[in-house]
Parts: sequence; C-alpha cells; structure tokens
Amino acid sequence: MPEMAPRTTPGLARIDHVGIACRDLAEKIAFYQDVFGLAVVSRETNEEQGVREAMLQFPLRSPEAPSYVQLLEPLGPDTPVGKFLAKRGEGLHHVGYAVPDIAAALASFGAAGVRLIDERPRHGSMGAAIAFLHPAGVGGVLTELVQPPGSSSRAG
Amino acid sequence: MPEMAPRTTPGLARIDHVGIACRDLAEKIAFYQDVFGLAVVSRETNEEQGVREAMLQFPLRSPEAPSYVQLLEPLGPDTPVGKFLAKRGEGLHHVGYAVPDIAAALASFGAAGVRLIDERPRHGSMGAAIAFLHPAGVGGVLTELVQPPGSSSRAG
Repeated sequence: MPEMAPRTTPGLARIDHVGIACRDLAEKIAFYQDVFGLAVVSRETNEEQGVREAMLQFPLRSPEAPSYVQLLEPLGPDTPVGKFLAKRGEGLHHVGYAVPDIAAALASFGAAGVRLIDERPRHGSMGAAIAFLHPAGVGGVLTELVQPPGSSSRAG
Repeated sequence: MPEMAPRTTPGLARIDHVGIACRDLAEKIAFYQDVFGLAVVSRETNEEQGVREAMLQFPLRSPEAPSYVQLLEPLGPDTPVGKFLAKRGEGLHHVGYAVPDIAAALASFGAAGVRLIDERPRHGSMGAAIAFLHPAGVGGVLTELVQPPGSSSRAG
C-alpha cells in the first residue's frame, strides 16, 4: 500500500478514451447508442491514420473529466487498424490518456527510454494534440497521449 | 452529428479503468509509477478470478470522476488472464465502465440481448460491485460494469 512514488510533473490526468477497432462503424455506433446510451459527439475520417472514426460520450458524464469511447473502422486492409483486425479481430485497440502538456510528457517519457511512435504531437480527434507511444515500450499496450484543445500549454 | 438518441437510464457514467494483462506485476507497477507518475491505491489477490492485481490512480486526477489503470498478473496458466497472455501476449485485457446502478444496467443490457458473463453482480476491486459482459456481445471487447461502493443503489 505505501508504494507511493508519484511524480506530479508531467503527469497523466485521466483516461481520456478507449479506442475500439471494428469492421462496421455504423453498426457499432448504433450498438453503443442504443444499448449503452452513449451519444456521438464527433465523426472524422483521418486519411493519415487510415481510419473512419466516431467519438462517443457518456450520458452521465462529468464535464470536468470527460472520457470517451472511440470507435475505429479502417479505410482499408493495409492500414494499421486494418492489420490489427486481420491479426486480432475486433476489440480494444488502444488507450488514450489526457495530459496537460503533451510536449513535456513526450520529452519525459522519451528521456525515460520509452519508445515513441510520434516524436512530436500531431492532430487528433476533436482538435486535440496527440502522440502515440509504441506498445513494445508499454507492456503491449498501444498508448496515446491527448492534450485537449484549450489546455494550458502548447506543443513545440 | 445529430445522431443523438441516448437513454439516460440506466446509463454508463464514465470509463472507470482499463485492465492490462502482464506477466510481472511488480515490474509493471514500477513502470507505471516511475514513468507515468501513477500511484498504487489497492493491491488484491482474487482467487476466484485467478489474478493478482493492483489499481493505480493518476496524479492529476479528478476526485469526482476517478479513473484507474488496473494491472493484472495471472495466478497460473489455466486462469482466464493466463490463457489471454498465452494467446495474445501482454496488453489491454478489458475496459471497466462506472454505472450508478449495476443491477439495473445488467437487466437493461440483458434485455437488449447482450450476452452476460455475470447474471448478478459480484465482488470486485476496492469494494465495488462488478459484472462482466461477454466480448462476443460487445464487438470483441471484454466489458466490465463497476458500481463503486457507496453508490446510490444496491444490487439485487
């Protein structure tokens, strides 16, 4: 229990979203809406990442600490999500954590030896700055950092 | 964008945790503490589920809407998490959503045709009532419902 050795800078604030790979985005949106009561707040096609996606929010959400379900359908079999589906089938694809300062977080994690997919932040869903850490450096978990728009600091 | 058809009862409140399967709990705890700044708030061995686990909280967390990283090490190869590791390796294992009334949520999702692993809530981490939905009914995602202790209603 007293294994408390947290560093508060630059820390992670919360789970921002789980990314879920699916074959049929419309079908999965309908399921999360009709059964779980979530609501779509954003739909985007990200050619760079090869996905069509939807962000869904919770009906009983906390405005101060929002979290989302991100549904991802690949644009083709040769995309990262397309390859994931071919290898593993539908399911959990990644987890995104909110950070107050994504540039500081990347610098810190890189200095700690974590393998970065993105050395610099890039554009993600809903105007956020995002960056991925390689799953090989995080125990098999594809890990995304998310700095929501309007957060305190800017990426370099 | 106007695909809003949320039902607010019984809804999901937020992502409570992501469950991550690992081979060496102590090593992974050290990583999440030292690199990501998280702190262990609970350690348990759950013989029924065949896991040793730790719940870690975020340094910049919101008290109203807590979320956690749950690290899971199997007690043996013939446990669910042991089989998961043998098949898929380390990585994301499940996602847990907070619900205000787990009995109502189970009744609602069961009525909607979702396959339940647990027909009734059982004891989970940190005194919560929990229940799992079968991944086959949720697009390949092992989905856990979590009613934190002290929440409004009680399970039947």
